[in-house]
Amino acid sequence: MIKTLEWTNAGVRFIDQRRLPTEEIYVTCGNYREVATAIRDMIVRGAPAIGVAAAMGIALGIRDSQAGSYSELRPELELICDTLARTRPTAVNLFWAIRRMRERFDSLAAEPVEQIKRALIDEAQLMYLADIAACEAMGRNGAVLMPSSGGVLTHCNAGALATCGYGTALGVIRAAVEAGKKIHVFADETRPFLQGSRLTAWELTKDGIPTTVISDNMAGAMMKQGKIRAVVVGADRIAANGDVANKIGTYTVAVLAREHGIPFYVAAPWSTVDLATPNGDHIPIEQRAAREVTHFAGKQIAPDGIAVENPAFDVTPNRYIAAIITERGIAKTPYSEALQKLANSVELSTASV
Amino acid sequence: MIKTLEWTNAGVRFIDQRRLPTEEIYVTCGNYREVATAIRDMIVRGAPAIGVAAAMGIALGIRDSQAGSYSELRPELELICDTLARTRPTAVNLFWAIRRMRERFDSLAAEPVEQIKRALIDEAQLMYLADIAACEAMGRNGAVLMPSSGGVLTHCNAGALATCGYGTALGVIRAAVEAGKKIHVFADETRPFLQGSRLTAWELTKDGIPTTVISDNMAGAMMKQGKIRAVVVGADRIAANGDVANKIGTYTVAVLAREHGIPFYVAAPWSTVDLATPNGDHIPIEQRAAREVTHFAGKQIAPDGIAVENPAFDVTPNRYIAAIITERGIAKTPYSEALQKLANSVELSTASV
Repeated sequence: MIKTLEWTNAGVRFIDQRRLPTEEIYVTCGNYREVATAIRDMIVRGAPAIGVAAAMGIALGIRDSQAGSYSELRPELELICDTLARTRPTAVNLFWAIRRMRERFDSLAAEPVEQIKRALIDEAQLMYLADIAACEAMGRNGAVLMPSSGGVLTHCNAGALATCGYGTALGVIRAAVEAGKKIHVFADETRPFLQGSRLTAWELTKDGIPTTVISDNMAGAMMKQGKIRAVVVGADRIAANGDVANKIGTYTVAVLAREHGIPFYVAAPWSTVDLATPNGDHIPIEQRAAREVTHFAGKQIAPDGIAVENPAFDVTPNRYIAAIITERGIAKTPYSEALQKLANSVELSTASV
Repeated sequence: MIKTLEWTNAGVRFIDQRRLPTEEIYVTCGNYREVATAIRDMIVRGAPAIGVAAAMGIALGIRDSQAGSYSELRPELELICDTLARTRPTAVNLFWAIRRMRERFDSLAAEPVEQIKRALIDEAQLMYLADIAACEAMGRNGAVLMPSSGGVLTHCNAGALATCGYGTALGVIRAAVEAGKKIHVFADETRPFLQGSRLTAWELTKDGIPTTVISDNMAGAMMKQGKIRAVVVGADRIAANGDVANKIGTYTVAVLAREHGIPFYVAAPWSTVDLATPNGDHIPIEQRAAREVTHFAGKQIAPDGIAVENPAFDVTPNRYIAAIITERGIAKTPYSEALQKLANSVELSTASV
């Protein structure tokens, strides 16, 4: 099994996703600042993985503190959380994870420092296990939506490498394959970072799931040729109305899918749903460095000084989405009601426990 | 002015388009087999440029012949034409140019060998000059369709580097800018060969036309943000019904343009129109090596042995196209009639000369 990230006594250990697929190298971040850098530099990426990485970063920062009491720990927690919150703006799982760790910290005001440290490490590890369980539940919920055979297109990497294991979109595909469906994955290479050709192709090949890599601009031609029967992607943030921010290019795939009458599915853990954001227009979109577009493996591929756009994400309006698959269940249009219902149902069940 | 290709006494001289934008290197092909290799390996690319390169290759092959008579030259002509015809299957300009050179050869049966050699060199050079004139006429015809200001998206390179000079789609943009329109070009980088980021951005920057490079998968987001007011692309073959084969990804751009209510224009010389091909389903689509997708600048970017699709072109059905801009005039839907009318009008005017 791929270990995307892992808590160790030496720190948080990541597979370096910049080096895949040709080099399988692990790096250990020995303090929370190194974890923040790993998130910003995309050693680790994928909304669910970023969230758990941040939680582990907070646990690590607090563990290393010299503070003697809860009240001395608090300003350190603020600094640690601020540092991690400033790494990447779009994936809401980051902020969800930071909030959850803060809430856990708040609940420990009466505890001695060693207890607090232990409790935060435990909380981060619980989030790690819950993420894998959520992916498996998404897989069970979503597998039924996959065709019994044929091509399924995915964009970017919403797999084991984007989560603590199993994956969101790729979790749905894995569960469908485990259920006997004969799926052939088409993986958009996903410029500029190539998460599709480098990461999705790598992890699916390891699992023996047939995969074909295409350039992003081939998706339309593949659909027109009848090679694609469904699309499934992950998400970095889902607004209250069901608009979905995901890797740049997702919107283009959604438009193409609708034009060809192909269902377009989104799979994401509930922590990606941001009911405080009314719609996609309010989701902050990260702009990354021009060099990701102008250079490739150190080689310059555009003229000196050329202007570049490099938004890391785009927003797919809810009307293009056939279903949003979460561990709590499947939401369909109208999304505002469907997502609210999933939110309420679990609050009720939690309240009744 | 950029010299994409040029007849010289030493052979056909090309700017090596694989090395741009960082290296401006010229290579001279001293015989027709080297010209064929230059076309196959994409030292020269772009449908109009390929056509004239093949014509010059034929002129070169015949010039180098030791044959003593027209009848001795004929089998050599067959071999030369066959070799050049086998380089790339989609761009019809290649076959158009070969046919035109054959017809010129056929007309020279009564001439001595030295006259035949001179006449074929002259014919190829005439085609060179006619190509530039056609681009300039396309520019005049198409400039009026461009917005008075704002973003215009283009895909691949349909510029000076794809022709003998000025360009088809970029010729329309150049003419619009010369007419005072304030156009900002968005250039799709165009994986896998990166004609957009490497070539279009390079030649437009040389001309001082503002240009922004984007990954192919950003086109949808740019349109949704209102940054694109028109799309103009070139063509490798236009069927009798107006279906257009062009660089892979063009179809995706056309679908996106229609979704956003943005006009999608095609600019191409009349030699790209293939009235013998009824519709796009009959256009042969070249499949290129997997390595173009799996490797970049020598670096492997996909796992060992992964399956790849690499069609070099796709077909955009006529219903997505707002107008086809040629040097003979503009065709609009219904395309079968409009293209036939352009064909007839020039045959009539030729007949009346």
